[in-house]
Amino acid sequence: MVMDETLERKTTRKDFMNIYERKIHLSDTDAAGVVYFASLLSICHEAYEASLEAAEIDFKTLVSNPEIAIPIVHGEIDFFHPLFCGDRLIISLTPIPLKETKFEIIYRVWVSSSPDICVAKAKTTHVCIHPNTRQRVPLPEFIGQWLEEQAQSSTDELLEKFSDLR
Amino acid sequence: MVMDETLERKTTRKDFMNIYERKIHLSDTDAAGVVYFASLLSICHEAYEASLEAAEIDFKTLVSNPEIAIPIVHGEIDFFHPLFCGDRLIISLTPIPLKETKFEIIYRVWVSSSPDICVAKAKTTHVCIHPNTRQRVPLPEFIGQWLEEQAQSSTDELLEKFSDLR
Amino acid sequence: MVMDETLERKTTRKDFMNIYERKIHLSDTDAAGVVYFASLLSICHEAYEASLEAAEIDFKTLVSNPEIAIPIVHGEIDFFHPLFCGDRLIISLTPIPLKETKFEIIYRVWVSSSPDICVAKAKTTHVCIHPNTRQRVPLPEFIGQWLEEQAQSSTDELLEKFSDLR
Amino acid sequence: MVMDETLERKTTRKDFMNIYERKIHLSDTDAAGVVYFASLLSICHEAYEASLEAAEIDFKTLVSNPEIAIPIVHGEIDFFHPLFCGDRLIISLTPIPLKETKFEIIYRVWVSSSPDICVAKAKTTHVCIHPNTRQRVPLPEFIGQWLEEQAQSSTDELLEKFSDLR
Repeated sequence: MVMDETLERKTTRKDFMNIYERKIHLSDTDAAGVVYFASLLSICHEAYEASLEAAEIDFKTLVSNPEIAIPIVHGEIDFFHPLFCGDRLIISLTPIPLKETKFEIIYRVWVSSSPDICVAKAKTTHVCIHPNTRQRVPLPEFIGQWLEEQAQSSTDELLEKFSDLR
Repeated sequence: MVMDETLERKTTRKDFMNIYERKIHLSDTDAAGVVYFASLLSICHEAYEASLEAAEIDFKTLVSNPEIAIPIVHGEIDFFHPLFCGDRLIISLTPIPLKETKFEIIYRVWVSSSPDICVAKAKTTHVCIHPNTRQRVPLPEFIGQWLEEQAQSSTDELLEKFSDLR
Repeated sequence: MVMDETLERKTTRKDFMNIYERKIHLSDTDAAGVVYFASLLSICHEAYEASLEAAEIDFKTLVSNPEIAIPIVHGEIDFFHPLFCGDRLIISLTPIPLKETKFEIIYRVWVSSSPDICVAKAKTTHVCIHPNTRQRVPLPEFIGQWLEEQAQSSTDELLEKFSDLR
Repeated sequence: MVMDETLERKTTRKDFMNIYERKIHLSDTDAAGVVYFASLLSICHEAYEASLEAAEIDFKTLVSNPEIAIPIVHGEIDFFHPLFCGDRLIISLTPIPLKETKFEIIYRVWVSSSPDICVAKAKTTHVCIHPNTRQRVPLPEFIGQWLEEQAQSSTDELLEKFSDLR
């Protein structure tokens, strides 16, 4: 059935938009034998890039846009368990619109071998500015749409999808 | 047919062992707008880690092995074309046994949007040592097996596989 | 006078313990033309390493200590101004003892060319654990001493010292 | 004497242009307990940035120049000894003019605690291009001057200077 196929495709697309999988590479670790703390924030940012890409937003174009820039003004991360080289991470991201110039993203991180235990949680806050004046400007429409689409998939849905990945 | 299935599985496994796909993340780039040169060597190393993993060699165990270490003693990279944030890289790796204590890996890098143009080429040389004495010791058997398996898939085969990925 | 000389030496040492200077390297930046957000957290961590070193605490020994590990369980950063390649950063750090197993560090970041404007603020939280059991254990005495010494130089003093660096 | 003073100042400036000191940070290491191989190439690049800065060439302006770009087309590194977190590196750089569009830099790396042993050697090759056409163009005059000034301080001189740093 055509309708079902469409539904199927939409679900799959959302899956990809909200869940990011990634192995811990040697370069992510430090001499203490675990992931270097700032590297996990960087890995979470990859999940954001992948989500935009899944929504057909070209990250390269966004980064070199002369009209708008969306820098991170705040980042934070909490570690609940150590992460080791070779661990397969599963990262969910939940973007939250805040103002017409601002949004944040909540990231939850699991290791595929212990999918019941959230190993880390992170947050990034993004504001839209003009690259030259550095004054705040409204988020572009395509980011607004991406935020809206994301809002439709709640954390519960995420966890459900995640259970399929186990 | 069972034989065919085995063949199928072997081929698939080799594919994964020799080809690594990876997007360029924002963190891989620098203010010149392209990939930071040393980051691409790091991305090539990810291809090596993925190849070992595909051969069921646990990289974490290898790195923390108290009996052997396999540090890189030489690395080099040539860039033929600039690489940008969001580019989807396809990296082939060709491990080459050199001595009983030493091997090297040749990496070739393409961008999926222009699969006829090799954008970069890299090489890493690895020697096996005892972590405490730092004296050379023979490569462990499982690395020998991995090298042997890899040798069976020539560059031509790689290019053929690559053409399937286009 | 001997007394003065001792005082002089102590002041100099504290200066070094609390203030860290560092240029922004090309590798710290991204294609958006500014410092990659997670890189600044990493640069703040360098200030922590330098402060321990100034207190004659060997960071390498600390990292490979089989009895204790002091991983970061929380990190956060706020950006108030963009940072560019070549900017000379001045970072103050203020360690704060929290429990016998835990401390945090507040970092303030300035650019030497505009020393009145704080460009970023960061925080890392560190807990002491046994590397094998990952259970919390009291911080070692030398870290306690370092925390105590740091507490003696207040933020006001820091800013005063900083004014000398302008 | 004025002449002597000028000489003195020139020597000091050249010292800074050719020698770069840098501690190994935790973020430079990996779970194998040593410096991550590609990180040392990145550290060598810092020496290049510092040398340009010592010659009053603004690296930020260079990187964002719309008329020219000087990307690295080749990088390589050889490791002779392992490097650990906290090691204080001394890096000499020797730029070598190759063509009117091209130069290379040789880096030699020592650890300050064992200044007789070269622990690593690296090379980067740089070509000058127009950022839009990516066609080769002659190196700007200020780079030509920097190369010339550098050529005046031979490796022997470097080693002599280095002996003062021990």
